Amino acid sequence: MERYVSLRKLLLGVVTILVFNLCIVLQSTVAEEKKGVTEEILEILKSEGTITEEQYNELMKKAKEEREEEPKDFRVYWKEGIRLDSKDKQFKMKIGGRTQIDWNWIGDDQDIKDAFPNFGGHGVEFRRARIYFEGTIYDSTFFKSQFDFAGGDVDFKDVYIGLKKVPVVGQITAGHQKEPFSLNELTSSKYITFMERALPNAFAPGRNTGIKLNNSQLEDRMTWAVGAFENVDDTGDAFADFSDYNVTARVTGLPWYADEGKKLIHLGLSYSHQFRSGNNNPTRYRNRPETHNTSVRLVDTGDISADDADLINPEVALVYGPFSLQGEYFYATLDNDEDFDFSGFYAFASYFLTGESRKYSASKGYFGRVKPKENFHQTKGGWGAWEVGVRYSYLDLEDGGIKGGKESNVTLGLNWYLNPNVRWMFNYIYVDVDDRDSVGRAIDNGNANIFQTRLQIDF
Amino acid sequence: MERYVSLRKLLLGVVTILVFNLCIVLQSTVAEEKKGVTEEILEILKSEGTITEEQYNELMKKAKEEREEEPKDFRVYWKEGIRLDSKDKQFKMKIGGRTQIDWNWIGDDQDIKDAFPNFGGHGVEFRRARIYFEGTIYDSTFFKSQFDFAGGDVDFKDVYIGLKKVPVVGQITAGHQKEPFSLNELTSSKYITFMERALPNAFAPGRNTGIKLNNSQLEDRMTWAVGAFENVDDTGDAFADFSDYNVTARVTGLPWYADEGKKLIHLGLSYSHQFRSGNNNPTRYRNRPETHNTSVRLVDTGDISADDADLINPEVALVYGPFSLQGEYFYATLDNDEDFDFSGFYAFASYFLTGESRKYSASKGYFGRVKPKENFHQTKGGWGAWEVGVRYSYLDLEDGGIKGGKESNVTLGLNWYLNPNVRWMFNYIYVDVDDRDSVGRAIDNGNANIFQTRLQIDF
Amino acid sequence: MERYVSLRKLLLGVVTILVFNLCIVLQSTVAEEKKGVTEEILEILKSEGTITEEQYNELMKKAKEEREEEPKDFRVYWKEGIRLDSKDKQFKMKIGGRTQIDWNWIGDDQDIKDAFPNFGGHGVEFRRARIYFEGTIYDSTFFKSQFDFAGGDVDFKDVYIGLKKVPVVGQITAGHQKEPFSLNELTSSKYITFMERALPNAFAPGRNTGIKLNNSQLEDRMTWAVGAFENVDDTGDAFADFSDYNVTARVTGLPWYADEGKKLIHLGLSYSHQFRSGNNNPTRYRNRPETHNTSVRLVDTGDISADDADLINPEVALVYGPFSLQGEYFYATLDNDEDFDFSGFYAFASYFLTGESRKYSASKGYFGRVKPKENFHQTKGGWGAWEVGVRYSYLDLEDGGIKGGKESNVTLGLNWYLNPNVRWMFNYIYVDVDDRDSVGRAIDNGNANIFQTRLQIDF
Repeated sequence: MERYVSLRKLLLGVVTILVFNLCIVLQSTVAEEKKGVTEEILEILKSEGTITEEQYNELMKKAKEEREEEPKDFRVYWKEGIRLDSKDKQFKMKIGGRTQIDWNWIGDDQDIKDAFPNFGGHGVEFRRARIYFEGTIYDSTFFKSQFDFAGGDVDFKDVYIGLKKVPVVGQITAGHQKEPFSLNELTSSKYITFMERALPNAFAPGRNTGIKLNNSQLEDRMTWAVGAFENVDDTGDAFADFSDYNVTARVTGLPWYADEGKKLIHLGLSYSHQFRSGNNNPTRYRNRPETHNTSVRLVDTGDISADDADLINPEVALVYGPFSLQGEYFYATLDNDEDFDFSGFYAFASYFLTGESRKYSASKGYFGRVKPKENFHQTKGGWGAWEVGVRYSYLDLEDGGIKGGKESNVTLGLNWYLNPNVRWMFNYIYVDVDDRDSVGRAIDNGNANIFQTRLQIDF
Repeated sequence: MERYVSLRKLLLGVVTILVFNLCIVLQSTVAEEKKGVTEEILEILKSEGTITEEQYNELMKKAKEEREEEPKDFRVYWKEGIRLDSKDKQFKMKIGGRTQIDWNWIGDDQDIKDAFPNFGGHGVEFRRARIYFEGTIYDSTFFKSQFDFAGGDVDFKDVYIGLKKVPVVGQITAGHQKEPFSLNELTSSKYITFMERALPNAFAPGRNTGIKLNNSQLEDRMTWAVGAFENVDDTGDAFADFSDYNVTARVTGLPWYADEGKKLIHLGLSYSHQFRSGNNNPTRYRNRPETHNTSVRLVDTGDISADDADLINPEVALVYGPFSLQGEYFYATLDNDEDFDFSGFYAFASYFLTGESRKYSASKGYFGRVKPKENFHQTKGGWGAWEVGVRYSYLDLEDGGIKGGKESNVTLGLNWYLNPNVRWMFNYIYVDVDDRDSVGRAIDNGNANIFQTRLQIDF
Repeated sequence: MERYVSLRKLLLGVVTILVFNLCIVLQSTVAEEKKGVTEEILEILKSEGTITEEQYNELMKKAKEEREEEPKDFRVYWKEGIRLDSKDKQFKMKIGGRTQIDWNWIGDDQDIKDAFPNFGGHGVEFRRARIYFEGTIYDSTFFKSQFDFAGGDVDFKDVYIGLKKVPVVGQITAGHQKEPFSLNELTSSKYITFMERALPNAFAPGRNTGIKLNNSQLEDRMTWAVGAFENVDDTGDAFADFSDYNVTARVTGLPWYADEGKKLIHLGLSYSHQFRSGNNNPTRYRNRPETHNTSVRLVDTGDISADDADLINPEVALVYGPFSLQGEYFYATLDNDEDFDFSGFYAFASYFLTGESRKYSASKGYFGRVKPKENFHQTKGGWGAWEVGVRYSYLDLEDGGIKGGKESNVTLGLNWYLNPNVRWMFNYIYVDVDDRDSVGRAIDNGNANIFQTRLQIDF
């Protein structure tokens, strides 16, 4: 069934729901009395007179006990990962991890070589190596503890505690988590279409420690999230930087949603106000050229003393069966004696040769796991899912006296989904950098070619 | 039922039990033949002549097989954590973790600011972020492997292997573990009443690598533990410091124990002799002001060259329904050319507004998990457990030429237990420091106010 | 049954199998229709006329549903570790870890003291502290993620993704893994007979990141493995060292295999060609004196600028019931303006006083877990397995101008296997070092005595 919701209705709906959710009445579902086959046999034996009323009662009680399971016992099963659900549904746990192994080859021209002699070459890297615990306990309290071991130290990647089923606000999450900003950033690295997020992701605040409220409305036709976060290090900690925090919000809507998500238009808008402490904690935008195993950032503003920063990010996506489009624009403005404005955008198209669709989570407002129609098996047949994609991304870090450079990348991608949990990715990137003269490195007009491939498992 | 045991009886009991335990006879429990309902139906069908003797025998065998489970299969269930128990009870595993997120605000006066300019301010910190495996295998061998990822490195927090059900000694544990010293130290950070342990915990040796024997006696009316430990780093390692080891022992008793532990008096005494290697590995006592997200220790002896140290620690606790008292005194004496004596103590009271009691583990001699009478649920009702507490703690690190200062803290605490596994804590601390002139920092009479809050999940 | 296979047959077999494996036909096993007891009771009740045809059909359907299990549900059980197998056998997971706690005591003579003043002494060390996830998903994709926390950072120890059941090649494994070189190196540290691998293990490349193919042939009478690997750091990463990679291969065979592996002769040969980049990444061979908790390497070539290295390693092992012999020879030759040759070997004998045999994995070509005939239990009786061993090992790092020294060690070992997962090891090592004059340290003729013990659990 195809449904259409106008923007006006969406906005009206938000207000309506924020007000009326307060009156939510929770219906407790009465568990229906169910009988097992053995109990039915006893019924028959009684009605036939084979057993006495007394025997019947005793055996019925025993049969019921046999059939009934401990409410706190877990059903342990595989569903794209190891899951444990308690029989009474109050406890649900997931235990798992992800591994991404990247190989990259970088070839650069003389202009870049002059600025970064160690940029070109070949590398292999464990891009991510994570384990996690995740769960809901006592029906409504949830948590996640995810750690990344890539590089030999422990980085926190979502370590939080929260409440769900909260009237009006839906979910409250406290701890280390992603700020609600940018479709590309919020889509897990397990599910992004290209190996690295697009260049202007340089502006996305990523994960910080704070408190977030979020919910979905209008039968999942829209989502909203808002939070306050402190700027923290890789393990979620900070001290004495009280003035460095962010208030970030995102709202998304689905004006078109059909075929159970195989056809949809997604619109979104994120905004972040960032309180900054000038030189005490300088602001800096930069990014790698969409390949991770290098320390080189071809564009880089260098340190800027700012009192405030404002980030704006409109996003749009279309899914039409196997075909998909996605784009975002990013705008950052820094306030101090002098103001600086930077911006960037990206757009990409993807197509599943094998007919799958990108999977959109309507309750969250971003993309999730692709499941091949047929898993790959080297002897039993089956070829998995195959996706091709092309992306253009642009990042402009030049304004006033800041000559951070401009970079545009064109990426061709090929993804092979062997099964829902294993993916092999191939990316070719053409890099073009202009007008950089910052952080002691100048690139007038430099180009590079990058080829990279990633083998990934997650569960 | 209320029971009273005199000290004389306690001591007599210890000797008696140490001798007679050698004669322990292990009774193997004979598994009673149990029948399922299907088997009983078969009995009836046979007695009715509905099935033949042959059919009966065949089906009975099959029914028994159906009902019987593999002895090494795990029952997986939730009991304040994820547990796996094998059907034959020989294997019991737990997999879990804990997360503590702290926010603190420190305000200090000029006296402290002069000594520590970076003390005041606000911070957020993942105080603990742990995962663990724990279990018993082959009925009597046990182990634990717990790692803390807070701060981005891996700290060992209990990594040991042991034997239980050992005649006389009960349990032998080898590896990284807590030395048996101090009720406050031995009570897990998951269960302590205030966010940080009291100031004189500065003397507690904490975790080291060594071998410990421990047992409980007199129907759990007393516990004892003794061990030898080497001073190790955060990952349990040491080399070439053979002369730096500790012999530590603790004994506890329950002169009064009633209402299944809801009413009790606990007495305990710990002692540690610490062999030290003078200047090769100096001895130093210091502590943070009962807040962790600061590197500042307001009292600090600095390095002392000692050949030996002796630590004595008497402890007392009372539980009377929702009301509880607890206190400990610490005394440390260092031997060298000159002797130094330091000391400290704390006392606190706690009261559960919602009627719960602090949970005492009689077999271990310290406190455990509080379970709310009613879990919090934001829509179904239930408010969890609420506890208020007040603590006074004192640490005197001044003796002879050592002017480490004296600190006394008053703490007001409020704990909200949403359910057995989630706790939200609030602490206000008034800090008073006098007469410090060590490690290049002098505080004549300084004061500080600290507010801090912790969100915690453990399972 | 005893079988004998000539070398000629082995070689012929390899070729035959490599060709004919392409024609592998996969037989799908038809699941037999099985009835539960309740269903059989229903059959009887119907035939007796107690229930109608309609009742019968309805109840049969329900009974079948009750009995049938979800195909993706896991059976969770203990088999030398925690295992999860899905009912449809497509998913098999293991979650576990290992802990090894070492205590060592080193006594050295004046000759060594002069060169290494800090060599002698006592230490305690967590030698390994690992956790891992391992599994097969969707029938043929497999993975392992194992991390070692010893020392406080995270080292990668097998982090890979692979395909099994591949025609001809058997298994393809991509990621961080051991290069197929040396029986001693490939046998897990959980199962090696002495606490540390022998001196000439200095030549074994160990783990690197790359791609490996391996398979077993001739009904597991031979195995082969070949791979290409890049030289990486402890977390599997490298950049810009494209010229530093290794091509490594190993082939093993069982000319004699009887009594289900309790009697066998194993022959093996490994070869590695290592492309090196001269001074950019110097080659160096050195080793600790078969004890780990010291940074001292008594023999050490120092840095050598090499363009290529070739390693050759023949291996032989005999198992004859409780008795076992094992030996390997290592030869390394480095190519540059000047060539250098180094070598080493070891041989050991082991005997199980309690009658067990070392466990050989015929499909892998190296040794695995020993299971005691009777587990140790401190009250129920049972003494576990006891093994004694003696080893001689030799490493010669002297050639041309390289005076890295020669070391020979004699080790006496005693292993107590309490149960399949817990082992307590004792080693005494007599160390003899001659003719070293490298890396600024000279040892003319030095001796040392080392005693060490290890407590180990793995699952």
